[in-house]
This record gives sequence, C-alpha cells and structure tokens, in this order.
Amino acid sequence: MITQEDIRAAAQRVAPYIRTTPVIQLESSWFDIPGDTFLKLESLQVTGSFKPRGAFNRLLGQPIPPAGVIAASGGNHGVAVAYAAQKLGVRAEIYVPSLATPLKRKMLTDLGAQIVTAGNTYVEALAASEARAAESGALKVHAFDDAATVAGQGTLAVELDAQLQDIDTVLVSVGGGGFIGGIAAWFGGRVKVVAVEPTRCPTLNRALQAGEPVDVETGGIAADSLGCRRIGGVPFSVLLPTVSDSVLVSDEQIRNAQRVLWDRLRVASEPGGATAFAALLSGAYVRAPGEKVAVVICGGNADPASFA
Amino acid sequence: MITQEDIRAAAQRVAPYIRTTPVIQLESSWFDIPGDTFLKLESLQVTGSFKPRGAFNRLLGQPIPPAGVIAASGGNHGVAVAYAAQKLGVRAEIYVPSLATPLKRKMLTDLGAQIVTAGNTYVEALAASEARAAESGALKVHAFDDAATVAGQGTLAVELDAQLQDIDTVLVSVGGGGFIGGIAAWFGGRVKVVAVEPTRCPTLNRALQAGEPVDVETGGIAADSLGCRRIGGVPFSVLLPTVSDSVLVSDEQIRNAQRVLWDRLRVASEPGGATAFAALLSGAYVRAPGEKVAVVICGGNADPASFA
Repeated sequence: MITQEDIRAAAQRVAPYIRTTPVIQLESSWFDIPGDTFLKLESLQVTGSFKPRGAFNRLLGQPIPPAGVIAASGGNHGVAVAYAAQKLGVRAEIYVPSLATPLKRKMLTDLGAQIVTAGNTYVEALAASEARAAESGALKVHAFDDAATVAGQGTLAVELDAQLQDIDTVLVSVGGGGFIGGIAAWFGGRVKVVAVEPTRCPTLNRALQAGEPVDVETGGIAADSLGCRRIGGVPFSVLLPTVSDSVLVSDEQIRNAQRVLWDRLRVASEPGGATAFAALLSGAYVRAPGEKVAVVICGGNADPASFA
Repeated sequence: MITQEDIRAAAQRVAPYIRTTPVIQLESSWFDIPGDTFLKLESLQVTGSFKPRGAFNRLLGQPIPPAGVIAASGGNHGVAVAYAAQKLGVRAEIYVPSLATPLKRKMLTDLGAQIVTAGNTYVEALAASEARAAESGALKVHAFDDAATVAGQGTLAVELDAQLQDIDTVLVSVGGGGFIGGIAAWFGGRVKVVAVEPTRCPTLNRALQAGEPVDVETGGIAADSLGCRRIGGVPFSVLLPTVSDSVLVSDEQIRNAQRVLWDRLRVASEPGGATAFAALLSGAYVRAPGEKVAVVICGGNADPASFA
C-alpha cells in the first residue's frame, strides 16, 4: 500500500530538487458545459515532465551503490533519472528502446548519462537493463512499478491540493500507472480521479475491465511516453479501488489537444502530456455542469513542429 | 500621473477578462551569482502577451462608439485590442505595418478584426489609423501613450506583489514604455525596476540619457514587438524618476535567451518576451549576491522554429 504519509514524506524529500509547477485557470467560455477548469502545468517541471518527482524519491531513499543507478525508459523517466543522478553526483545508465525520440536521446546525452539502445520496446529495454543491473550492482529505478516511485509521483497531488480548493475531478494521462497511482493514493477517493489513455495504449482500461493487469498491444503518437504493455502491479493495487473513470482518446484527438494548447495558450505539450486534456476537449470525458476540473499537462518534451 | 489607486482600480476592472499568470522559481544552480530567481510567465496571458491588461482597461473605461475601436500595432497590442473587442462585442479595426509577422496577422484575422496594412513602420500605421479614426469616430486605443493603458499594464505588478514577497528587483522588456511604466508606477521605488531593451531598439535608454523622449532608429529580431521610434510621453513621466537601470542586450543574446527558455524550461517566448531574461542570462544585468530577482516573460507569440 502507498499511504498519504508515504507521499507526504516524499514531498519533503524531493522538495529541494523539484519545482512547484504552476496552475492556470481557463476562461469560462472555453467549454460549452459550464464549470471551472484548471491546468496543472507539470510540463514546466524540471526535465519537462513529472518524472523527477518519483526518480528523486527513489534515489534519495537509500544509499546509491558505486555502480550508480540504472533505468529503462523510452524517454521522460530516463531523463529524470539521469537528471537526478547528475544532481546527486552518481552514475546513470539508461536503457532505451529504439522508439525513443531523438529529442529525448539528446536530453539524456546532455545530462551525462550513459545510453544503451536495447530492443524495440520498453519491455525489451527493461529486460536488458535488469540483466545489466544483476551484473553491475547498480540501483534499479523502475519507471512505475515501485512504491517509492509511485509515492514520489503522488507529490503532484499534494501540490495541487495546496493550489486549488474543492476540486471535484482530476484528469490524468496514464502509461504504466505510476503517476495516476500516486495521485489516486493521495486523494483516497476524496477527488474523482479520471484515467485517460490513448485508444492505442489502453493498458489501464483493459486491466480495469479484467480486474487484473493484462498484456496489451500499444502504439500511436503517444507510445514513447504512454506505451506500456502491462500496468504496474504496485500502482494497480491502488488504482483498482480508486479510479473513477477510464477514458480513451484517439491519436487525432491528442494531436488536436496539443495544437489547441499551443495556439490558444502557448503551452508546449508532448502527445502523452496532452492526452488528459484531449479527453476534456473532445468530450470523451463529459463533465457535469459546475464540475470543477483540474487537468494535468504532464509533459512538454516535444519537437514544436509536432504541435505548431 | 498614474497612481497606485488607478492601477488597483484597473486590476478590478480587468479581472474578469484576464488570466492570473503563473510564476515559477528557477533552481539555485541556474546562475553563478547566488540569489532567488523567479519568472513571471505573462506569455501565458490570454492572447499570449501582457497587452490585454491595458486594452481591457482602456475599452472598459468609457462607452464604445458605434464605429468600434481602432488601434495601430505591429502585433501583440493589435491582437489584444481585437480580443478585447471580440469579448465586449464591439468592432475592431487594426492598422498593421508591413513588418507584422504572419503569425500575428493570422491571430488578428482569427479574432474577427478588420486588418489594414499601412506603411512600413509602427509610426506610419499609427498615423494612418489616426486619420481613419478622425473620419469614423472609432475609439482610438494607443499601444502605450495613454494613462488607462499604462494603468492596465501595471496590473501585472499588483499580481506579482501578491505572488512574491520581498523581491528586490524586476526586469522588464521595454518597447514604447507602457508596460514598464505601469509596473514602475505600482512599485513607486519600493522595488528596483530594470529596463531591458535590444541594442537595436534603445528607445528608453536614449530618452533617459537625453532626459526627454527622443527619436531613435529601431530594428533587429525584436522590432515587431519592441521597435518604437520614441518612448511614450505618458509612461516616460513615470519612468524618468523611477527606473533604476537601463540595460541593452544584443539580438544574439535575445535569441540565446529564447533557446534556453525553451530547452531548459519548455517556455515559449518571442524575442521581445525573452529580452528581459537575456539581460540576466548574458550578464548585461549584474545581480548583487542574494538579490531576489523577478523577470517578466512578457510574450510568447513566436513561431517555434525561431527558438527550438
């Protein structure tokens, strides 16, 4: 179990290293159905995504072995681990699948991490990284299936709670479940937590239907950040009882959300970062009149050519 | 004179129409000289710049004639006037010089304004708009040389005051002086207000040297938002006694500031919007150790190709 106390402790632990990200309120004329709408711009977090919250909490939780830390990631998690390792002065080795974007590869290199391309999917990169960790003794930093990481991601909800009073609902993009797991654990049913996934990456959606983690095929424009074959067991144990709604959006709806965020707000988002907003914009999630909704824009590491 | 009372009244008047823009704090490791650094992301204001603050305050100050409103602008002011007119249900005619960027022309068209291209410079467009206003009876909305507009721009400082305690210094980009004039009027010497201009648009810098508004040649990458031949008399009367420092930055330093804002923060800025930050980044403005500095990122209406 991940408790509120775990998340509160994580918030204190990571505070010196992460940024309190801003919230903006949209004009009431944005949507046909009335109700206050807020965007939590986690895309302005250090490294451009929410991932350092979990990475720092994991790295700060125990001594780091001489071999440093090791992670597998298509992008944002790897960048966050590399960033945290750099700040804490330890080595980082990041295993990336071939679908990692050039932008995220460059970010990793700039942070001084050692990059190893391994396999075509996250699962293959993960397996390779685990074999390597067994050999090197490096600390494994899982992207989502780890209690310390999930508690760290939950610190976003602590911040949101302090920034906005009486929100009814929070919309969150889902990949492996670590981010929404931490958020749901913090709110504990007090706020409606809506999971949003691309139609082509329905990992949590299928697991909720099945009542347990199941394998799914993933693809599409958000796969580099949200494509995850199987939801993490650790977050799923939190999510099964607490997630209110599971909504799917098409790649076209995600791209449109990215464009609207840019055209109307000058907010840069990557596909995975705009996925939760796509649910509200497209009507895939239907708000009740007067429902006070917060949407997390969870990543901004995109080539602007993709949204401009 | 523009008083704090004028600005406080403006803040109440424009509140229903503008967004409270967020502030983020940079990591302490950003700069060699220690001291807290905050960015006020006014680039996330409605229409992508600070200009609606002044435009709404001007338009809400008196009845609008049947001919609507008229303004001359290379971009952001025109977009703000068009936006305010649309929200208030009145006609807007915007005179743009030929140097207006395609992006800003498109924004004007999308807002339903009537666009007239007149002359190669802001001064020529302004003259044409004034001739037209004399004929049509439309309400003229000057970009900076008007007390209501300056008081409206000053509402940013009211917000900043509520968001950050005990700042020592605020860095502001300067074009015609309306924005910094409103900010300086609010702070009234309590906070150090530093004016930053491109080397190629040194309009306030030269006026401060001369002790009065003087004509200057303007050009370079920020000219579409900051290029102004002569500082406004209304803001200058506030600025002469209150501006602490006047700093110039090169086009190259501005472009670098745009790139850093994007690469490290995923903040989109236009050249004029990044000019104040360029002063801190380049060292053109030298902070004292421990000086608590706020930098206003005042516009984000750029083609991402220019900063990415």
